[in-house]
Amino acid sequence: MTSPESRLAELGLTLPEAAAPVANYVPFVQSGNLVHVSGQVSKGRDGLIAGRVGTDLTLDEAKAAARVCALNLIAQLKAACGGDLSKVKRIVRLGGYVNADPAFTDIPQVINGASDLMVEVFGEAGRHARSAIGCAVLPLNAAVEVDAVVEVE
Amino acid sequence: MTSPESRLAELGLTLPEAAAPVANYVPFVQSGNLVHVSGQVSKGRDGLIAGRVGTDLTLDEAKAAARVCALNLIAQLKAACGGDLSKVKRIVRLGGYVNADPAFTDIPQVINGASDLMVEVFGEAGRHARSAIGCAVLPLNAAVEVDAVVEVE
Amino acid sequence: MTSPESRLAELGLTLPEAAAPVANYVPFVQSGNLVHVSGQVSKGRDGLIAGRVGTDLTLDEAKAAARVCALNLIAQLKAACGGDLSKVKRIVRLGGYVNADPAFTDIPQVINGASDLMVEVFGEAGRHARSAIGCAVLPLNAAVEVDAVVEVE
Ligand SMILES: [Ca+2]
Repeated sequence: MTSPESRLAELGLTLPEAAAPVANYVPFVQSGNLVHVSGQVSKGRDGLIAGRVGTDLTLDEAKAAARVCALNLIAQLKAACGGDLSKVKRIVRLGGYVNADPAFTDIPQVINGASDLMVEVFGEAGRHARSAIGCAVLPLNAAVEVDAVVEVE
Repeated sequence: MTSPESRLAELGLTLPEAAAPVANYVPFVQSGNLVHVSGQVSKGRDGLIAGRVGTDLTLDEAKAAARVCALNLIAQLKAACGGDLSKVKRIVRLGGYVNADPAFTDIPQVINGASDLMVEVFGEAGRHARSAIGCAVLPLNAAVEVDAVVEVE
Repeated sequence: MTSPESRLAELGLTLPEAAAPVANYVPFVQSGNLVHVSGQVSKGRDGLIAGRVGTDLTLDEAKAAARVCALNLIAQLKAACGGDLSKVKRIVRLGGYVNADPAFTDIPQVINGASDLMVEVFGEAGRHARSAIGCAVLPLNAAVEVDAVVEVE
């Protein structure tokens, strides 16, 4: 089986630096073999993807923002696994939060941007349970935030 | 003790088909003996219960919508347990999300519609930790969404 | 090491009564050595801290409200630990929910009020993964709600 790292390379993706904690919380905590990863906002190489989906961003732009969140989650997971993503046994759950105009209801389609990347990178182990909701506002006015519960070896 | 299946029958409830995945996520993932069930929206036999609570739906209508979410959760749980709900040891946690008008604050009363069904069906094993929030919008404009963490044998 | 109870005393904090369940849910459920604590709203000794942050409350007032939520969580944890907070091994995750004006984006700074108290009381064991979002409305119109997943002995 192709390693998650090879799949990232095939996808032309480079992991960002795992973002450092900015307060009295940490990017992830492992308890038993479950890792809880903190909410990652849509902040990528080109800066923060900000604004309200349906007003400031289209569905496609928001889906791309969700993909950025997932890439940040994978960067945190790599740190949690001591640098070896093949220790990820299963993405158990994603929580998807969309900074959404109250009239914008395609919330699942936005979060598919994160779900798809998980399956592209981890294969069957990337298929997860998921909840997705529309929020009044997100940290820094980010367009999307995603968190995760992950089983590791 | 009456089985959960018998209680459903006594309540005159028939489980819906466990909804099939519509994207790169799955209805539930088990890790150890914890099952994480994806957010279930208020879509029942009679179609989607949609709209904003406090504007488009009354408290009673919203509470009924939350009960539909819980019934969908139980259908997923039955699939997770290989068809035998007596393998459910404890409903650990429900997350309740209400598509709410910002002026509607009876969020807990809405989610009671889901909590009550869990206790009616599973008895003491159905008593769970819970968080309930009001959202700007939910998938498909659903009125209510509920997810769950459940301990199984 | 100073006990969590001593640190609370040093901080001049007295734990509230652990709030009793008001519906078919309970304040916490333990599964294995993980305790899931129900969402605690910003209701303290002086009553409910209510309203929309950015409109009705300032950042500092909201941060104080988040601290009240954390104190309520610790009260529930103490009950979950049979009265002995030294059985807390790790605050694994906090979920932070802010009743926020859509134009108010300092959501992380609000939830720092809860995160800081966890570290003040539990030291390194208090450092947690975290997600923070802005909600359309919260139960009772509370300004802040926080829930927790905690590893115990
Ligand atoms: Ca968990």
